[in-house]
Amino acid sequence: MGAYRFFATAQSLYTIDASKTQVQPTKTPREKYTDKTKLLFGKEFTDHMLEIEWEAEKGWGTPVISAYHDLKISPAASVLHYGLECFEGMKAYKDDKGNVRLFRPYENAKRLNRSADRLRLPTFNEEGFVKSLEKLVLADKDWIPEGKGYSMYIRPTLISTQRTLGVGPAQTALLFVIMSPVGPYYPTGFKPVKLLADSLNVRAYPGGTGGFKLGGNYAPTIAPQAEAAAKGFSQILWLLGDKVTEVGTMNMFVLWKTPSGQTELITPPLTDGTILPGITRDSILQLSKKWGEFTVSERDFTIQEVIAAIRENRMIEAFGAGTAAIVSPIESISYKGTDYKVPIDSSLNSGKLTKRLLDSILAIQYGEVAGNDWSVVVPNN
Amino acid sequence: MGAYRFFATAQSLYTIDASKTQVQPTKTPREKYTDKTKLLFGKEFTDHMLEIEWEAEKGWGTPVISAYHDLKISPAASVLHYGLECFEGMKAYKDDKGNVRLFRPYENAKRLNRSADRLRLPTFNEEGFVKSLEKLVLADKDWIPEGKGYSMYIRPTLISTQRTLGVGPAQTALLFVIMSPVGPYYPTGFKPVKLLADSLNVRAYPGGTGGFKLGGNYAPTIAPQAEAAAKGFSQILWLLGDKVTEVGTMNMFVLWKTPSGQTELITPPLTDGTILPGITRDSILQLSKKWGEFTVSERDFTIQEVIAAIRENRMIEAFGAGTAAIVSPIESISYKGTDYKVPIDSSLNSGKLTKRLLDSILAIQYGEVAGNDWSVVVPNN
Repeated sequence: MGAYRFFATAQSLYTIDASKTQVQPTKTPREKYTDKTKLLFGKEFTDHMLEIEWEAEKGWGTPVISAYHDLKISPAASVLHYGLECFEGMKAYKDDKGNVRLFRPYENAKRLNRSADRLRLPTFNEEGFVKSLEKLVLADKDWIPEGKGYSMYIRPTLISTQRTLGVGPAQTALLFVIMSPVGPYYPTGFKPVKLLADSLNVRAYPGGTGGFKLGGNYAPTIAPQAEAAAKGFSQILWLLGDKVTEVGTMNMFVLWKTPSGQTELITPPLTDGTILPGITRDSILQLSKKWGEFTVSERDFTIQEVIAAIRENRMIEAFGAGTAAIVSPIESISYKGTDYKVPIDSSLNSGKLTKRLLDSILAIQYGEVAGNDWSVVVPNN
Repeated sequence: MGAYRFFATAQSLYTIDASKTQVQPTKTPREKYTDKTKLLFGKEFTDHMLEIEWEAEKGWGTPVISAYHDLKISPAASVLHYGLECFEGMKAYKDDKGNVRLFRPYENAKRLNRSADRLRLPTFNEEGFVKSLEKLVLADKDWIPEGKGYSMYIRPTLISTQRTLGVGPAQTALLFVIMSPVGPYYPTGFKPVKLLADSLNVRAYPGGTGGFKLGGNYAPTIAPQAEAAAKGFSQILWLLGDKVTEVGTMNMFVLWKTPSGQTELITPPLTDGTILPGITRDSILQLSKKWGEFTVSERDFTIQEVIAAIRENRMIEAFGAGTAAIVSPIESISYKGTDYKVPIDSSLNSGKLTKRLLDSILAIQYGEVAGNDWSVVVPNN
């Protein structure tokens, strides 16, 4: 798609000035959760939200933090008609010293910029975005549940508010951020998932938008997922022809012995644009390469190779990776009516690498690893 | 996707009762256009809109017609995050007796139902939808500009208003309809379009959702279309590999002599799910078959076949087809850097069949053709 318009046109129109952020504290605080162990993903929201409006002629306006509220949206707004929307998923954590932390927030800012550019929505300076978002996180820091695995899910969303029905680049847009306190994805230890490999429905294709985090990538997955659930499967393993692509809304990883006997961690590559460049995915690749204990590969592999590895006892473990669960162990894959079992260490309810990655990433997210710069403390002012 | 849930579950939850429609006339009429020849598509809206809310436990609520207004939407609503939205494009016409007419409205109702089902949004009885919509059209019938080619564009839209971030079937939804007066697409006669055949970006893929009218199908087309426009092309000719699929937001038709000398009108088939089942497309196929003057085919054809037909002087004409323009003549196709000219009758600024189809469909839409049941008069009560 070429360079960001941010670089190509008047930079001032694509700059968020976080220093001007207006904080309008709520006068009617929302009812806060009383039992953090009963939190459900994305059902309960914090007291405040962040909004930054954009107009083609004026650029980004003042970031405003105010009470969580319904949006007033024109019934002609492009976001309601043409799926002109993209989003991010991030988390804020409270460490055992009481610091508020974010995990690789500039990676989310970069990805949101790429998504925006793909949709001809306005791009922005990443620092302006992250610094405004930090102010929101601080405004609601009391909402972050304490304890390892607990966090505050952050949902930045960028929509076209254009009030006309023509299909075209947005002349007005809104970037907003809402937040929801969440517990650990697996509160009582891992629960491995059963996958249904779907060769009928396709999540993304070369020349499409699977490599961007766009709203329109998600709507089509709901019916196939509901049908898989009705058959007793937890998630869909998305195929493109025979190629393995993603699992549910996560990136897919397999640890196996190759036919030649090498131990290899493998995930599909980002080259054809069908795979979302997950930040957990990237973190897993970087950590595994640093450990240097096995081959780490980003390359295509097929469902037939997965089945052959299972049949020939070369499969070691398999898991999905994403912001919500970090890693999600896989216990079986159903393909064309046959269930193939993926090894699970019964003492861990997951593979050993899956557990090690969870523990390693959690330790980084909660600031327990000296010298690691992925987790950043939100400055208290 | 199996049968509509409308048929599969409690029918009462999927029934709109148009007889209960509440009309709350506006107290502050909007400023009406003064010069119908200056109307722009989808920029100006009528006094009223229709809204019908749906809840999983209560089904469809009372249809309400009230003053055009902004919607209040939760910032967590699925429509803003996951593209859970589908829509239709229709038109109301005023005939020379002053009757208000719709064109094949039940076809739009059926397609919206199919889109809804694909997204696990609520389906509905088609009569309830059409009858409520007719009441809206009558409420704003004074907004319909008079004269052949003038009409009131109607935009039914169905969105998930679910206030949680989980990706799943909607538990609450809103069906709304807004309307915009429009002039003829070509006010001073046809203006043929120059196409850029795009083999890099793909509009739809087998196993995807191109055959449904979903918001998320449109957002990804904006950047490629803007890039094509910057190079001087009017529209993109979407390819899937070498296969010709659609043109801009229209279905694609070619009239040519086949290598064996037959005159054939051809458009891609609906079989692989990549082609939108256009109502103008269907009308053209039915009319052409009734005329019986040439072969009418729904089958795949490639850009190479199109180029060969042009080179060998077998190309007769080519056009796009959709609700907005009815037909849109094509004068050239650029593929891999070469411009291929499509014949245009200079006295018509289009091909002869293109013009004949425009005239035939317009005559039906404005109620000038006895015995044709595609155009229906909206009853005045």
